[in-house]
Amino acid sequence: MTDSLDAAQKTRVAVIGLGAMGLPMARRLAEAFPVTVFDIDTARQAEVAAAVPAATPAAAAADADIVVLAVRDQRQVDAALFDVDGVAETLRPGGIVVLTSTVGPDAARATANRLAERGIGLVDAPVSGGPARAGTGDLLIVVGAGETDLAASRPLLDQLASTLTVVGPNPGDGQALKAINQLLAGVHIAAAAEAVALARGLGLDPAVVIDALAKGAAGSFMLADRGPRMLQAYDGGAEVRSRLDIFVKDMGIVSGIAKDAHIPVPLAAAAHQLYLLGERAGLGAADDSSIVTLLSPQGSGQ
Amino acid sequence: MTDSLDAAQKTRVAVIGLGAMGLPMARRLAEAFPVTVFDIDTARQAEVAAAVPAATPAAAAADADIVVLAVRDQRQVDAALFDVDGVAETLRPGGIVVLTSTVGPDAARATANRLAERGIGLVDAPVSGGPARAGTGDLLIVVGAGETDLAASRPLLDQLASTLTVVGPNPGDGQALKAINQLLAGVHIAAAAEAVALARGLGLDPAVVIDALAKGAAGSFMLADRGPRMLQAYDGGAEVRSRLDIFVKDMGIVSGIAKDAHIPVPLAAAAHQLYLLGERAGLGAADDSSIVTLLSPQGSGQ
Amino acid sequence: MTDSLDAAQKTRVAVIGLGAMGLPMARRLAEAFPVTVFDIDTARQAEVAAAVPAATPAAAAADADIVVLAVRDQRQVDAALFDVDGVAETLRPGGIVVLTSTVGPDAARATANRLAERGIGLVDAPVSGGPARAGTGDLLIVVGAGETDLAASRPLLDQLASTLTVVGPNPGDGQALKAINQLLAGVHIAAAAEAVALARGLGLDPAVVIDALAKGAAGSFMLADRGPRMLQAYDGGAEVRSRLDIFVKDMGIVSGIAKDAHIPVPLAAAAHQLYLLGERAGLGAADDSSIVTLLSPQGSGQ
Amino acid sequence: MTDSLDAAQKTRVAVIGLGAMGLPMARRLAEAFPVTVFDIDTARQAEVAAAVPAATPAAAAADADIVVLAVRDQRQVDAALFDVDGVAETLRPGGIVVLTSTVGPDAARATANRLAERGIGLVDAPVSGGPARAGTGDLLIVVGAGETDLAASRPLLDQLASTLTVVGPNPGDGQALKAINQLLAGVHIAAAAEAVALARGLGLDPAVVIDALAKGAAGSFMLADRGPRMLQAYDGGAEVRSRLDIFVKDMGIVSGIAKDAHIPVPLAAAAHQLYLLGERAGLGAADDSSIVTLLSPQGSGQ
Ligand SMILES: NC(=O)C1=CN([C@@H]2O[C@H](COP(=O)(O)OP(=O)(O)OC[C@H]3O[C@@H](n4cnc5c(N)ncnc54)[C@H](OP(=O)(O)O)[C@@H]3O)[C@@H](O)[C@H]2O)C=CC1
Ligand SMILES: NC(=O)C1=CN([C@@H]2O[C@H](COP(=O)(O)OP(=O)(O)OC[C@H]3O[C@@H](n4cnc5c(N)ncnc54)[C@H](OP(=O)(O)O)[C@@H]3O)[C@@H](O)[C@H]2O)C=CC1
Ligand SMILES: NC(=O)C1=CN([C@@H]2O[C@H](COP(=O)(O)OP(=O)(O)OC[C@H]3O[C@@H](n4cnc5c(N)ncnc54)[C@H](OP(=O)(O)O)[C@@H]3O)[C@@H](O)[C@H]2O)C=CC1
Repeated sequence: MTDSLDAAQKTRVAVIGLGAMGLPMARRLAEAFPVTVFDIDTARQAEVAAAVPAATPAAAAADADIVVLAVRDQRQVDAALFDVDGVAETLRPGGIVVLTSTVGPDAARATANRLAERGIGLVDAPVSGGPARAGTGDLLIVVGAGETDLAASRPLLDQLASTLTVVGPNPGDGQALKAINQLLAGVHIAAAAEAVALARGLGLDPAVVIDALAKGAAGSFMLADRGPRMLQAYDGGAEVRSRLDIFVKDMGIVSGIAKDAHIPVPLAAAAHQLYLLGERAGLGAADDSSIVTLLSPQGSGQ
Repeated sequence: MTDSLDAAQKTRVAVIGLGAMGLPMARRLAEAFPVTVFDIDTARQAEVAAAVPAATPAAAAADADIVVLAVRDQRQVDAALFDVDGVAETLRPGGIVVLTSTVGPDAARATANRLAERGIGLVDAPVSGGPARAGTGDLLIVVGAGETDLAASRPLLDQLASTLTVVGPNPGDGQALKAINQLLAGVHIAAAAEAVALARGLGLDPAVVIDALAKGAAGSFMLADRGPRMLQAYDGGAEVRSRLDIFVKDMGIVSGIAKDAHIPVPLAAAAHQLYLLGERAGLGAADDSSIVTLLSPQGSGQ
Repeated sequence: MTDSLDAAQKTRVAVIGLGAMGLPMARRLAEAFPVTVFDIDTARQAEVAAAVPAATPAAAAADADIVVLAVRDQRQVDAALFDVDGVAETLRPGGIVVLTSTVGPDAARATANRLAERGIGLVDAPVSGGPARAGTGDLLIVVGAGETDLAASRPLLDQLASTLTVVGPNPGDGQALKAINQLLAGVHIAAAAEAVALARGLGLDPAVVIDALAKGAAGSFMLADRGPRMLQAYDGGAEVRSRLDIFVKDMGIVSGIAKDAHIPVPLAAAAHQLYLLGERAGLGAADDSSIVTLLSPQGSGQ
Repeated sequence: MTDSLDAAQKTRVAVIGLGAMGLPMARRLAEAFPVTVFDIDTARQAEVAAAVPAATPAAAAADADIVVLAVRDQRQVDAALFDVDGVAETLRPGGIVVLTSTVGPDAARATANRLAERGIGLVDAPVSGGPARAGTGDLLIVVGAGETDLAASRPLLDQLASTLTVVGPNPGDGQALKAINQLLAGVHIAAAAEAVALARGLGLDPAVVIDALAKGAAGSFMLADRGPRMLQAYDGGAEVRSRLDIFVKDMGIVSGIAKDAHIPVPLAAAAHQLYLLGERAGLGAADDSSIVTLLSPQGSGQ
């Protein structure tokens, strides 16, 4: 541990993208590393007191050993890395980009290839766990990376993750596992919504139903976690912990890779469509648990 | 406990339907009660050594206080109760039928009404947990029954269940909760199948994927339980612990009550269709985990 | 023709249910037969000038040879026939009920059985074509009925239908064909909605798209008929010619019979869910073409 | 007409890809233009008697004014154009590629951009109608192309199409309309399969059902065209006129563009999944009408 902290102290880190996940990750990293930060909303940079703000991604990466990307999707990844004033302009050969965003295996591989042309490594490291756990170094990270890049970024990853699964040696491997994670998570949330809505529709108390079922054969992490938030969604709205449009994006990634692999995934496809309908109904920025309101109306009725 | 056993010793029980669930339930009940049994496959009656075989449901019920029904579906329930030589011909007024089959709330209510005309009570008591737990009195039972009937059947239910949830005072209430249980279970199994098939399709080791995901946000009881059996399903076939056509029946019940309640359940509907396709592909009597073979082929390929 | 009109003049007809279909059917029948009418909304009875209003279904049926039922669903059928003051109280043995509502084969068979106990025949005769064609005797009617009942009701059916298909000799046969008709119609409307919404989403002019596709391999009656009404649905709303909740009911019938026949119908199931979501979004009484507004928003945007 | 034939006589054409569509198109073009042909299966080249075979795409394009691409998918398009010995190596600046394959709008745009770098124009011209109509110049072609390229390729397009719809001035516009065509066609085929399977399941004669419904509100081109072939599919198998895996590809294109446009298309998604399941069941190279055999078994049973 002392060893890796020693190594850590020498590693200079840049964090690009200070949103729901990037902000707590930057704070957590700044407890152990010298950190520079950049977000296109520059106001957010001030929220990481221990970090040095930068005017552009290129400026943030100029003196960095490792750049952590925490932007939303592949379009933002491309912009942060390869646009004018992007990371690729300044990050030194031998530097490493740690990609924590969920973008899909193809996008990760394409990014790795473009970076490789400049001698930059990519550690494919999508994360799960949400903002709170990001701030305490308690994330679950699934990694696809070659040995050298992995070794070099290990202290940084250890600072963020309580569970680190190395899926394979190639960028894209982490994304592949993360996509399967999202397939299950997205389907389980939708199933929980159907269970809650049906319970109400049948005149049962959904809180009792969740309680009775969460620990048996019908149980899932999402039923226990999102179930109660669905009751809030009926009752004025749940606090936004995970935006519904994240699942529009992620189930889209799942559909895409399943299509390319010629694997039928009828439930994931149905869940994808349901999230799209939710987005169309104006719930994109609401908590994902609000999907339940498409299935039975808010208020005291069924 | 002594008290209820005392009460139990006086209660004479008939068990009708000695299939996957009825057989171990009959054995378990015979440890505490005098039991008569009937199944249309009379060979099965001999498998409950401690019980007295009967030639018809009517004969089995003739001296009983409580009749436990463990047949498969509503058609079999109607036949066992109301056909010539059925239970209703001989069960005494004041007797109780404990309905452990999953048949849906409407069917339970209709059955209760027909029995009530003869002064017979119905305890709606669908079960979960599978054959092994049925044999050890470790089932999860969800009950809809009036107070008197519940009290009278309590010692018997306690002999079968480690967890007993009283959902409401009316027959159908237990079935309603059980249907929601099956909605979740059926969707979760299908989702696990998609995850396993996609993992293979992407060239990941599905055993590693299940392991990595089962405890996180993607976790469900079914992923941990059926996931490994799906690997067996690819590899020569899983032992049949729960037939696929049970989910054809149960997702059909779910679709029906959701339709009647005007609640959209797009994932449950997609899962129902997938089980129907599995049945059409010849998997009705196979373990439900075999549904994965519809999504990617057996053998070493993807 | 003269013969059947002679016969017709002797046939006394009662029409029960004066809604979108029943009202024009009653008017059309009154051109050729003596007609009494009943609707629970008595104001509607005055709208058939040439008919005699009745205070109850029983009163309407008292002197009738044939009772035409044009109520909405099986619940209303049961009420009109078998409640206190229902048709069954007064219709003479040998009388005939012509069931024009779409209720599904099982419901038709059950109704036929209950009527048979009273010596009343059932002609299962669900209709297609909409209100305008109902008023001009231009409906498409698919019939399940025994020979005698069919012969007796033929002049009346000919007064309503330009196309009459006798599907089989049993009540339920007409409903079975009608259900398949609705499966296709309901799926085609939903597909047209997806095509229109996608055209807009891709920046194409949906009117041009409908025009270009309606006559080729992508064509359907519903694309040509509902497509243009979907453009109105975006633009303030289409006139209500066929309520969306009719398809909630009818796709529910389709799901039910497909389930009972163990036939997977994944598209019909998805369409059923979409109509249910439309109903939940408040569109139950709107024209069915309004389903398109779930897929892309009203107004000039995509 | 004389004018365009004069122009035509000067236009030298290369056809790349001589499959189900490319072969009859090459024959038809060779009636009016000097044609060279290439297919990776060189045996197929001999089947166009009137054309000059070439050893590579580059050789075929060397003296051509217009190259017609009739390969299967975007991977094959990329190979034919941009691999070593590809069209792009030899086709002269000012030359035109006519893309008749269905590949989706994004792929067409990307291809147009790569060709534009070499001064080569792209006419986006996906076709409908099938092999027989390809051979008689009776295709339906939807075009996205700038004015100059369209004018130059017009005589060639007129030789192939009886109906030509110019959707817009940009490559991708034709593909967008074709994708919507395929959305409808793919859903309608699946719906016809459900109707046929359900008819059988209910004990109706599916031939009578198709006949009774094809001209009414349930009618579609596909019901009339594929319906009868589905009966053959049950009865030993239908002749392969359009491979099922074409719809795996095309519904995949539809899903992809709908996802990118954030338009929910739940029925197209369900149809896509059904075709994928068909492919997994070994039907990829069978006629698309064989999808019906997934829904109810072959043979005389239901
Ligand atoms: N299997 C499981 O893991 C679980 C099942 N359940 C539910 O429990 C119920 C029973 O399931 P399961 O045991 O698997 O079903 P089975 O089909 O294995 O058992 C039903 C038994 O009843 C017999 N039977 C049929 N008709 C009659 C009759 N008229 N009189 C007497 N016996 C008759 C059947 O004979 P035959 O086979 O010849 O028809 C069969 O032996 C179902 O409703 C199921 O949904 C609940 C939880 C778990
Ligand atoms: N609309 C259409 O285009 C088509 C409809 N159909 C089918 O035809 C049937 C009728 O449809 P539609 O006319 O649209 O339905 P409506 O709801 O417009 O008409 C039903 C009428 O019956 C009345 N009613 C309800 N209960 C009774 C009763 N017990 N006695 C007498 N009248 C009663 C209703 O009153 P209240 O509204 O107050 O309940 C209403 O006026 C349905 O099964 C439908 O599926 C078939 C083809 C086309
Ligand atoms: N079939 C139909 O009814 C219709 C098809 N379409 C569309 O038209 C396109 C063609 O379809 P279809 O003709 O059925 O497809 P086929 O697969 O039958 O034909 C494609 C042909 O191109 C050959 N090919 C592959 N790669 C190359 C290459 N690099 N250079 C030259 N030839 C190559 C293929 O050889 P090999 O097989 O060895 O790979 C094959 O012979 C598709 O996009 C399809 O969606 C449109 C309307 C109707």
